[in-house]
Formats: sequence, structure tokens, C-alpha cells
Amino acid sequence: MTKSAAILVIGDEILSGRTQDTNTNYIARFLTSLGIDLKEARVVGDVEEEIVAALNALRARYDFVFTTGGIGPTHDDITADAVAKAFNVGIGYHPEAYALLEARYPPGEFNDMRKRMARIPHGAALVANAVSGAPGFHLGNVTVMAGVPMVMRAMLEAIAPQLPRGEQVQSITVEAAIPEGAIAPGLAALQKEHKDIAIGSYPFYREGTAAPFGAQLVVRGRDASAVERAALALEDLVRSLGAAPQRVNTADSANGK
Amino acid sequence: MTKSAAILVIGDEILSGRTQDTNTNYIARFLTSLGIDLKEARVVGDVEEEIVAALNALRARYDFVFTTGGIGPTHDDITADAVAKAFNVGIGYHPEAYALLEARYPPGEFNDMRKRMARIPHGAALVANAVSGAPGFHLGNVTVMAGVPMVMRAMLEAIAPQLPRGEQVQSITVEAAIPEGAIAPGLAALQKEHKDIAIGSYPFYREGTAAPFGAQLVVRGRDASAVERAALALEDLVRSLGAAPQRVNTADSANGK
Repeated sequence: MTKSAAILVIGDEILSGRTQDTNTNYIARFLTSLGIDLKEARVVGDVEEEIVAALNALRARYDFVFTTGGIGPTHDDITADAVAKAFNVGIGYHPEAYALLEARYPPGEFNDMRKRMARIPHGAALVANAVSGAPGFHLGNVTVMAGVPMVMRAMLEAIAPQLPRGEQVQSITVEAAIPEGAIAPGLAALQKEHKDIAIGSYPFYREGTAAPFGAQLVVRGRDASAVERAALALEDLVRSLGAAPQRVNTADSANGK
Repeated sequence: MTKSAAILVIGDEILSGRTQDTNTNYIARFLTSLGIDLKEARVVGDVEEEIVAALNALRARYDFVFTTGGIGPTHDDITADAVAKAFNVGIGYHPEAYALLEARYPPGEFNDMRKRMARIPHGAALVANAVSGAPGFHLGNVTVMAGVPMVMRAMLEAIAPQLPRGEQVQSITVEAAIPEGAIAPGLAALQKEHKDIAIGSYPFYREGTAAPFGAQLVVRGRDASAVERAALALEDLVRSLGAAPQRVNTADSANGK
């Protein structure tokens, strides 16, 4: 049974537009590589009741929830307290986290705000932070990570061995210099014939080229041979419309929509 | 009274990690410039019941909801139908949208899939698309826009005159070459003294520099003089810790977290 996941991004800076979130995309690719289906993502601000409500909605519904943001030393870092409240458990200094952080600072510099980073909800296990020390944690099906992308990525690496591996989604992307609307009838028919795979269509416009309108047509599914069969049928469809289908590496075209 | 807003991003390609969403950040900045507070963002896949549920949750709670994605001609474009279902209204060809689209295509090329783009929920008003013709629409407090960034931006421009202007949030960003944890106690005290403004702290690490650990400290609020007073106090705090505060243009540092 394929596992499901959700992401909860926490931070006023995302909602104000100050910061472009890139963590969601990184975690999405990471989960796809493990064969876990990301089903939903949410962004909320640094407001305790919003974090609690979103977390409780998501953790009840999906197998895994990953949060980013709000676990630093400053007053606006309130994620650990919000998680404790969501799970209705206490919170306090985690001995291992406390010792680990204390060892990082010269005598007298491990102030009360830095100690906040050792506050971990009761019952949670630490997630190592190979970059800057202060750990994340996981509690139940929720993994709590930093917002700084470099730190978040290190935490994801640390938690990876504990996550299940599912059957990976296979995908083939076929590019065609055909306007989306011209291939849409054939795509709809193809989707009806291949119910075990999902066909997506992502139009592009390339100014200054001979045929500027085109689309990346993506075939996705967990059965590699079904995906290949659908891709071959898709390539036939493109040819029948007078264009040359081209398989492309989706990793290279992720921002090409 | 400040107006609130939410964004609903619709598309499997965001959740699979294939596409990095940039629309949320663009809309966030747009709303900030109008003085409207973006409170939440969600991403769901191309699944009707998910879109309906998210839309109904968000439109009940916030003054405005902006959706992106799923209004093209292909079978996976199901946003218009989902919106009609969420509002419990019918859906059909909108005469103006139909005429507008029909005029764009040579005879015989306005096929049934392209006609899908003229399907608009009953009671909705069109949102012009200066880029590629096929309109978005708004119904109640929900504005439905394309997912292709260039088209989404044009639709946002088109709807802008109909949105209210609120008092803009003023923000001042002070950069300091001080580790976040060292300034955190002073920041917490400052936040307590200045309850009418919000102080955020965004750490950075600049490898290879003399003082690699630092933070961007952001003061935000709707009262410009209160923001300025807090920023001056913040600069004093930075100096008291032996560093030189530097005001920076946040527009230049949006991705610098």
C-alpha cells in the first residue's frame, strides 16, 4: 500500500512574499524518489493556533507529515510548542539536545534563547542536524525540520533511513511542438484507454522559434511497462498530428512549465 | 479592517516535484503591495474532491481566495468543474468566453477540448487573459487563474482594479553579522516593548567571510513611525553587541534566507 504524505511550511516570510519557498519542491522530489505520494502542502504563518490546526488536520489524514520552519532560537520560533500542543503532550529540555547544544557554545554563550532549541515535545525522538547542530525531531507521524534549506536537507537525509520505501512512480515526458488544445482530444482518448496511468499536459511557449506553442506530455504510473506502452501510444499520437515527439529528461525541465 | 486572503495551487506537477511553484510567491508580493494579508496557501492535486474541500474551507475563512492551475483544454484541467461543485452551481459555455475563443482559432480547429476553456460556472464573471486568450473567472470571493506563470500574472493585473486597497505593511530589514542566538534575547525583549510591530529573524551563513554567521532582522507593521522606532531600537541593539547594523532592501534579499 502506497504511503501518503503532506508538507506544512511554517513562516510569515513565505506568506509576505519575502522568501520564495524551495523546501516544498525539494521534499516533493525526495518523497517521489522514495515512492511516497505527496498529497498536499500547506503554508501557515508564525501563529500557534494556525500551526496546531493545520498539523492536526494533516497528521490525521496522511501517513507522514513534514514541517519546515520555526525551530530556531528567536521569539518567533514557536513550532516545537505548537507541535506539543497539537499532540497534547508536555515540552521541556531534551537532555541529549541540551548537551549537544551546550557543547557548541563557549562558556556563558549558551543563553536562554539558545536553550529554546533544546525544548522538545515529550516522547519525540531527535533528528540530527549535520549542518548547524540544533536538532529537529519526530513525534508520531510528524517530522519537524528547520526552514533554512541547507539545514532542512541535512535533516531529511538523517530521517531517510527510517522512512519506508514504496514502489516508485515511473514517468516519461514526451515533448511535442503542438499546441495543447490540438492534442487535447487525443490525450483524453489515450487517458481513457490507459486507466492505470495518469497523463498530464504542461504547455509552453518559446518565443522566437518556428513553432512556439508546444506541450510537455507526462505519463506517470507505478507499472513501468504500462507507462512505456502509454508513452509509445502517445508518441504515435504526436506523429499522427504531424509533429516529432521527443522524450526529455524531466529533471532538466522541472521549471519549464 | 485589513482584508485576508488565501491561495490554492492546483496541480499534480507541484506535488510530484516536477514543477517549482513560483505563483504563490508572486501573488504573495502582489497582495502585500495592495495591503491585503495573505494568511494561508495550500497545494492540492488534480483531484476534484480535494479541490472542492480545500476551496470550501478557504473561501469560508478568508476574504479572498486565489486559485492557480487546471483551467486549460486538457482532460486533467478540472478546476472550473470543481469550483462549480464547491459553490453548488451549474456550469456551461459562457457566451463571451466561447465567442472570444472561437475567434482565436481557424475554422475547424475550435475542437471540443478547446471549448472546455469556455465552460464557466454559472454566475461567474470573466477575468481577462491578455497573454493567451482563455479567460479566468471570479465567483463570490474566489478568483480562478491559470497555472502558467506568465498567464497568471496577466490575470492578476486584470483583476487588480477590483481588489480593495488596504493600509500597506511597512517593513525595515536590518542585517547584522551576529549569530541569531546571540541577538535572540535582545530581540525577544524588543518584541515585548513593541507589541504593535512584528519582529522576524532570518539567519544566514556566508561561507568564506570573516563573520559568516548573521541574521536579517525584519521589523513589520502598518504604522510607519512605529516601525521606524522599532528599527532604530533594533540598530542600537546590534551596536550594543559590537556589530554594525545595515539596512538592506528586502526586495534584493528575498531569496537570501
